[in-house]
Amino acid sequence: MMEFTESTRGVYVIAPTPFTSEGAVDLESTDRMVDFFLERGANGLTILGMMGEAPKLTLEESFTFVRRVLARVKGRVPVIVGVSAPGFAQMGALSDRVMGDGASGVMVAPAAALRSDEQILGYYRQVVETIGESTPFVLQDFPLVTNVIIPVSVILKIVEELPSCVCLKHEDWPGLSKIAALRDASAAGARRISILCGNGGLFLPEEMLRGADGAMTGFAYPEMMIDVCRLHAEGETERARDVFDAYLPLARYEQQPGLGLALRKYTLAKRGIIAEAKLRRPGPNLSAADIAELEALIDRQTARLAALG
Amino acid sequence: MMEFTESTRGVYVIAPTPFTSEGAVDLESTDRMVDFFLERGANGLTILGMMGEAPKLTLEESFTFVRRVLARVKGRVPVIVGVSAPGFAQMGALSDRVMGDGASGVMVAPAAALRSDEQILGYYRQVVETIGESTPFVLQDFPLVTNVIIPVSVILKIVEELPSCVCLKHEDWPGLSKIAALRDASAAGARRISILCGNGGLFLPEEMLRGADGAMTGFAYPEMMIDVCRLHAEGETERARDVFDAYLPLARYEQQPGLGLALRKYTLAKRGIIAEAKLRRPGPNLSAADIAELEALIDRQTARLAALG
Amino acid sequence: MMEFTESTRGVYVIAPTPFTSEGAVDLESTDRMVDFFLERGANGLTILGMMGEAPKLTLEESFTFVRRVLARVKGRVPVIVGVSAPGFAQMGALSDRVMGDGASGVMVAPAAALRSDEQILGYYRQVVETIGESTPFVLQDFPLVTNVIIPVSVILKIVEELPSCVCLKHEDWPGLSKIAALRDASAAGARRISILCGNGGLFLPEEMLRGADGAMTGFAYPEMMIDVCRLHAEGETERARDVFDAYLPLARYEQQPGLGLALRKYTLAKRGIIAEAKLRRPGPNLSAADIAELEALIDRQTARLAALG
Amino acid sequence: MMEFTESTRGVYVIAPTPFTSEGAVDLESTDRMVDFFLERGANGLTILGMMGEAPKLTLEESFTFVRRVLARVKGRVPVIVGVSAPGFAQMGALSDRVMGDGASGVMVAPAAALRSDEQILGYYRQVVETIGESTPFVLQDFPLVTNVIIPVSVILKIVEELPSCVCLKHEDWPGLSKIAALRDASAAGARRISILCGNGGLFLPEEMLRGADGAMTGFAYPEMMIDVCRLHAEGETERARDVFDAYLPLARYEQQPGLGLALRKYTLAKRGIIAEAKLRRPGPNLSAADIAELEALIDRQTARLAALG
Repeated sequence: MMEFTESTRGVYVIAPTPFTSEGAVDLESTDRMVDFFLERGANGLTILGMMGEAPKLTLEESFTFVRRVLARVKGRVPVIVGVSAPGFAQMGALSDRVMGDGASGVMVAPAAALRSDEQILGYYRQVVETIGESTPFVLQDFPLVTNVIIPVSVILKIVEELPSCVCLKHEDWPGLSKIAALRDASAAGARRISILCGNGGLFLPEEMLRGADGAMTGFAYPEMMIDVCRLHAEGETERARDVFDAYLPLARYEQQPGLGLALRKYTLAKRGIIAEAKLRRPGPNLSAADIAELEALIDRQTARLAALG
Repeated sequence: MMEFTESTRGVYVIAPTPFTSEGAVDLESTDRMVDFFLERGANGLTILGMMGEAPKLTLEESFTFVRRVLARVKGRVPVIVGVSAPGFAQMGALSDRVMGDGASGVMVAPAAALRSDEQILGYYRQVVETIGESTPFVLQDFPLVTNVIIPVSVILKIVEELPSCVCLKHEDWPGLSKIAALRDASAAGARRISILCGNGGLFLPEEMLRGADGAMTGFAYPEMMIDVCRLHAEGETERARDVFDAYLPLARYEQQPGLGLALRKYTLAKRGIIAEAKLRRPGPNLSAADIAELEALIDRQTARLAALG
Repeated sequence: MMEFTESTRGVYVIAPTPFTSEGAVDLESTDRMVDFFLERGANGLTILGMMGEAPKLTLEESFTFVRRVLARVKGRVPVIVGVSAPGFAQMGALSDRVMGDGASGVMVAPAAALRSDEQILGYYRQVVETIGESTPFVLQDFPLVTNVIIPVSVILKIVEELPSCVCLKHEDWPGLSKIAALRDASAAGARRISILCGNGGLFLPEEMLRGADGAMTGFAYPEMMIDVCRLHAEGETERARDVFDAYLPLARYEQQPGLGLALRKYTLAKRGIIAEAKLRRPGPNLSAADIAELEALIDRQTARLAALG
Repeated sequence: MMEFTESTRGVYVIAPTPFTSEGAVDLESTDRMVDFFLERGANGLTILGMMGEAPKLTLEESFTFVRRVLARVKGRVPVIVGVSAPGFAQMGALSDRVMGDGASGVMVAPAAALRSDEQILGYYRQVVETIGESTPFVLQDFPLVTNVIIPVSVILKIVEELPSCVCLKHEDWPGLSKIAALRDASAAGARRISILCGNGGLFLPEEMLRGADGAMTGFAYPEMMIDVCRLHAEGETERARDVFDAYLPLARYEQQPGLGLALRKYTLAKRGIIAEAKLRRPGPNLSAADIAELEALIDRQTARLAALG
């Protein structure tokens, strides 16, 4: 098992859960997808997140999928598993199981009803009591979906009080100033944790410039995020922007709320990485017009990338 | 197994899940609680609802609790099990299991994100595909918690299109006109389903007068609901109001959002029905002042009931 | 102008805005209503609150109504005016105008988008900059409608930092422990402000026992709240409960969300206090069944009050 | 006054409200801004929308601003005014006034509490009763902010029943299929209204291909939207995409929720179109890092546009 710590850097690809045309979890596509992400240079994988259709799986299917991913990864990179659940008993059972199977950490979003600073802090205290102090966890900050606003001051209290919080999955809006404020706090003595950004990578160049350590999100071309992070690390920020701009029209299109995962799975299937674009219900179906637009955007992207060299 | 149909009448007590002082599911208290509710005249039981702390149980604990309740009930009354889940795979697995164990039906609340009429109708179509057409289900209409408004017209479409919808757990606000509108529709030819009301029984006399068939809710004195429904059936509506009024100060107090279940469990423990007032986290603790007020209200209620004869 | 301070006690009746059958603001009913509330012993009035249909008035109508109430009150009791507005420019213009006309203070609910502690505190800082430090204000804490949770710690910061916050309109759920926590803080040195409770008086006996100073809410029989507060002040807490219990079945019925104001105006018109039960759109109409139930509850209440002596 | 009809095409720029450094409405900048938008080819203007800081203006300031814009436009293009208000009396007063002053139509977003299809339809029926059948109105469909989902079927009912609904401001997510469904309905006989799209133009090429008539949104470079719409009309769809892609990195950055208007005003001030970047409170301040990023993106955009020729 690879260690997952507050020094984590790079790209953790949020992996979808592939299904066969009959709707079963597709374990062969799972292997192929893991291989593809690692070959392209992913620094880690995150599974059973919101984009992993986790709530649509039975508990047994979840465990089977996690074990398959872990078996294929063979400890080459850390694997993080989403364990958000409506209650602590379920969260604890899930976390114990996947950590026992070899995951490197878990990810927990705040429960939707949390409002005040004290409620949020109290929730994460209970999370740590539930998953155990030795389980590293990612704090998922995604107000668009959770409807929970986590102020910088609360993140800093969690970081101070709960040493097993090693990473922030950053997905707030507007979020760039939040990264800067957290880094300023670290410069002033607060513990520095890893910040990996979400939102499909749509603000990645700016996030890296503000002090992020990388990305933890999904896009059918994770190469974009991997290249942007690598170029940023090499000091090639203008080149990083050029790469980013070349992928942006498609990244923007894939990021449509409600439709994004269907578009991403279509593209991954088109690229041969998974066998089927299938989503479990409830989930949208792509129309012929959606597919035509997606194909046009992929063609234009291919041309731009070729021009970029 | 007792049949659960659209002709259902009377009081289905929403049963809490008892825990030991160590926090385990308390199966002996479960037996005692089942006995108590049935001795008092409950026409059915509903378990693993929102007030049953269902999300705080692991899947295995849920199954153990359901089996214990069913074993104790021994088919004397129908048992309904809440199977609301974030995804259909989980809902299906849960429903199959409890129906196989001998439940008479399941209860399903709408997913929180549903907004338009078509989305709500589509959701319940998928529910029926998931649980099977032969599983009778309760449509739980509780906007205060789900944030989903289900108009009368949508309920009527569900009733028309999905014959396995046999009961509405009615908990909308303001809700009396909703009962009347559904009964008017039945008078005009729509299928008539059972309407059992919630909200801790706080509007029960008026609900019965509007055409409800009974209650499906919790209160530490289910006798109140059982007596009100019985007196109403006997045409003794003024007497039903007298009984209701005698319990109302306590029923109102127990219905405090956020605190209600803790108050109910305290009272059930005080009455000797369950061993411990314990709630699983996250859940409130009663203060000394809460308990003193509750005791004072119980004392006054005892005096009023004695005066009532 | 009567002073409105942190020592405020008693009942501030939330007054509705009466309309003629043609829908205009009914100024004659306004006079009669003011007289009635003051004759019954109201310690103050609050107008243009959520139950005052404030958003349905034009700005000119609001000013006319406020001036009429102030002219009729003639400084006998303080009048508080709701000035919540989507922006500070509007709030400031409204506050300046009504304070200039002779109001004793204003009431401000938090903007619906506020989430974190710092956002709420910052909002009230801006409120005070907007309305001026010399304008006493009521902090309206009503999460059911505003969807903003204001923790005790944030109320205490507002109380500490903003001396013109002299009163909390308390309407949180569960709220009794909030009153106790604020009083404990005052005992430990925090500034003590007035706490007047809402929720239609449905928890008034318990609220007074926890340290509230009275009520600021509406009910078609404000006598109930006035008597309960008076009896409580005289140490007659059991007698206060008797009075409360006698009114409770109707108070509960009137408190139905969505229907409450229509029921209250019907009763006020029936009592001859306002000419018409009319609400402006959007607002519900009472059905014949609603009215029959209301009349039955009023009759039973009359009998109970007679028995009480 | 220019007519605003269901045949409307092109770009209606959502105009901000300029303020002086002291915070007053800046009428000279208003003139310059109007001139700039019209010189660049805007087909209309929309003022006092969500991005116009309307709730932060007093009523008098709103009227002054509207009159100034109308005086400067001198009937060259239609001017639409946002009149969304918490109540119908306010909406009616505002609409009457601005239509009397020479506006060509008004825009109304649904009230935030609306949920069911019937509630939404009923709301717009009341809107038309309030503003009058002869006032053309824009239906603003922006669920991210209003939290109201308006299904296609409800839009079609509004279109069928309310002839003064001449335009949809389209801002739903995912929204492309919504445009297609509305156009399909028109092909099948439904009245065809104008569809102008929002979201800062971030999906404009695809929206036009699906059948939109143009854009009604804001961006500091409205040239982008004007060029994309013109090229689309000329059948130059690939060239339209090239232009779009050149502006996309900046458009994406400006579209950050919470920060967007501050970024837009900064850029408009930098371009000399308004005097100050000032926002009224509550509103964010740009950090030095925000400004540096914005400048870098503008520089890169200038280079790309030069290369595009």
